[in-house]
Amino acid sequence: MASRPIALLTDFGVKDHYVGSIKGVILRINPNAVIFDITHEVRPQQVNEAAFILNSVYRYVPKETIFVVVVDPGVGSKRKAVCIKTQNAFLIGPDNGVFTHVLSNEKKVEMRLITNDRYFVKPVSSTFHGRDIFAAVAGHLSCRDIFKSLGPKVAKLRQIHLLKAVHQKNGVRGQVVYIDRFGNAITNIRYDMLSHGPLSERLRITLRNNFRVEERPFFGVARSGELFALWNSNQYLELAVKNDSAEQKFKIKVGDLVCLNYGKDH
Amino acid sequence: MASRPIALLTDFGVKDHYVGSIKGVILRINPNAVIFDITHEVRPQQVNEAAFILNSVYRYVPKETIFVVVVDPGVGSKRKAVCIKTQNAFLIGPDNGVFTHVLSNEKKVEMRLITNDRYFVKPVSSTFHGRDIFAAVAGHLSCRDIFKSLGPKVAKLRQIHLLKAVHQKNGVRGQVVYIDRFGNAITNIRYDMLSHGPLSERLRITLRNNFRVEERPFFGVARSGELFALWNSNQYLELAVKNDSAEQKFKIKVGDLVCLNYGKDH
Amino acid sequence: MASRPIALLTDFGVKDHYVGSIKGVILRINPNAVIFDITHEVRPQQVNEAAFILNSVYRYVPKETIFVVVVDPGVGSKRKAVCIKTQNAFLIGPDNGVFTHVLSNEKKVEMRLITNDRYFVKPVSSTFHGRDIFAAVAGHLSCRDIFKSLGPKVAKLRQIHLLKAVHQKNGVRGQVVYIDRFGNAITNIRYDMLSHGPLSERLRITLRNNFRVEERPFFGVARSGELFALWNSNQYLELAVKNDSAEQKFKIKVGDLVCLNYGKDH
Repeated sequence: MASRPIALLTDFGVKDHYVGSIKGVILRINPNAVIFDITHEVRPQQVNEAAFILNSVYRYVPKETIFVVVVDPGVGSKRKAVCIKTQNAFLIGPDNGVFTHVLSNEKKVEMRLITNDRYFVKPVSSTFHGRDIFAAVAGHLSCRDIFKSLGPKVAKLRQIHLLKAVHQKNGVRGQVVYIDRFGNAITNIRYDMLSHGPLSERLRITLRNNFRVEERPFFGVARSGELFALWNSNQYLELAVKNDSAEQKFKIKVGDLVCLNYGKDH
Repeated sequence: MASRPIALLTDFGVKDHYVGSIKGVILRINPNAVIFDITHEVRPQQVNEAAFILNSVYRYVPKETIFVVVVDPGVGSKRKAVCIKTQNAFLIGPDNGVFTHVLSNEKKVEMRLITNDRYFVKPVSSTFHGRDIFAAVAGHLSCRDIFKSLGPKVAKLRQIHLLKAVHQKNGVRGQVVYIDRFGNAITNIRYDMLSHGPLSERLRITLRNNFRVEERPFFGVARSGELFALWNSNQYLELAVKNDSAEQKFKIKVGDLVCLNYGKDH
Repeated sequence: MASRPIALLTDFGVKDHYVGSIKGVILRINPNAVIFDITHEVRPQQVNEAAFILNSVYRYVPKETIFVVVVDPGVGSKRKAVCIKTQNAFLIGPDNGVFTHVLSNEKKVEMRLITNDRYFVKPVSSTFHGRDIFAAVAGHLSCRDIFKSLGPKVAKLRQIHLLKAVHQKNGVRGQVVYIDRFGNAITNIRYDMLSHGPLSERLRITLRNNFRVEERPFFGVARSGELFALWNSNQYLELAVKNDSAEQKFKIKVGDLVCLNYGKDH
């Protein structure tokens, strides 16, 4: 079989040897491995952040990509290691809820515990399963059909609580769930939650209940300095300031309320 | 044909899913793609900075490398997408002047608009052409000769204003145009602008008109703490402090005047 | 021969063109090169830091990996360029002691100066041997057996002073030698320095002579906020705070004394 590509998503940062060790272990097992980085700059131990990023990139990778997702505050404890086969990809990482977001949109999945230590780097450390278990398993899985031999099936994984946008009278009520490198504030309000057709001037968007936000189709047409909203490249409502940071300029934080109302009465 | 390598140069940073999505899209189209990063840390929307970096690396990549350069404040607007074939490389990105620097040294180029949407990821978002257009086109171009089918020829691209060093009575007058990670201040004065042969003690260099800078052949011979000048690895005059940051120690900024005078009268 | 993988470890950072130029030069020489980053975020000119990171990753890469280690304050001076063949890998870089740590554990090595300029990018700059010499040589060595033609054998390399843990009455006395991205403080006390068998409650660990540190088997069992010690994934004693930065919370610095005592008398 051709090599399955391996995508890395961790909170290891890039200043230490950690990511290099992960790549070294993979290449030792599969010299032809194609490895690419999603990011290693998830803030330490922020499982929710990793879950969001994974979901954002998930539809844009080759089929059968192996995601190695290591944000793992429970490393060394009894938390499980898991490998999940979806219709698009393989997911490898700790069972701490980091796959909640992606799996909420998947129907046919097969989930297995990773228990077969013949695939591990030994001795297995108690602090770096990213190298000794997850990278090693990914290396093997990238070049051989070993999924079924990784360990027993498991029916249920741990979940994290995801902030979800909800429908309400005459609109949708959501939150800022992620702030990107540009200071753009991404919400959990998806375009397909809207109850009517194309967007119109009648859409009313507010931040923190009382701050009105104008909708713009793209960055270029926004007025300088104004906070505006657009539908981003993953179909979520996003608050931004043209050529500036919405986060800094408007003190936006993850969790901030964003509401969207339809109707003529505004 | 063998895969053309793809070099990425963006302002997307590395903390979000953006670069991972770009690489995923490329690998989905060409599983054998060789992708390497120039940088993703161009400061947001700093087209001039990207133009400088592109020019610095341009001579040091394999022939036919495809540069994907995405610093794109105009994304979603009517700004054009372009692909340029030079004698050394392909350049893909927005038509916002980011190629000005490299193209000022190229003679034989063929420039095309990117309009053929059969190569795009669909639906094309209005905020992430880096993924939906530029990465996708690069993926196709890396494994097939599709250049001529990308879109119509275009005769003229947008230009950015480049600070240029100029000859003046008895010397050259230039500016600091870039400050690197070490705090070294790179000017736009090229070695081949000098009107005489090998450098001599008679060369007089000043920063901001009145601050005298000594010339040294390399870092090691500079005196501790002094600001000195050398000809860097791309043949430009560079101001530096040994084992320290010239930027911080001498408050150097992009745009600062640097003059170089020849002659015995000093 | 199959391509030897190339691992890059530098202080070039990732915001400029430097790392891109290094990769471009390698791929120009060997289009099939497999290049992976250890890190480019060694603090500028910190040879000791690079030596530590190299040693941490060294056992976890494919056989015959070519490490290109460029932390090179002496670039341009008469400091030598060297290539070392060990039983596991090739090491390429300046002769400034950066290989001291790794070589202290190696027995059979062959060391050569890099003097044969047929492998260099020309003209060789006086400030960027990372590109013009080290990357170029690595590119050639990755696809051909040119080790013996690089230059003459050399018997002795420069050494840096490594802080070493020492045995003392009833224990081991060491230091913090590295602080990682999480703020974990890694010491030079290796597990195999312990004079007795499995760790027990009787082990007494102190930081800066008077601050008692509890030993925990892994992160999860530590108490919130406490400074604790564990044996890390490279078998060194490491001081950490669960889900927090030990460095910041306890003002730990490289060089801080860490002592470990056995016995019942505590």
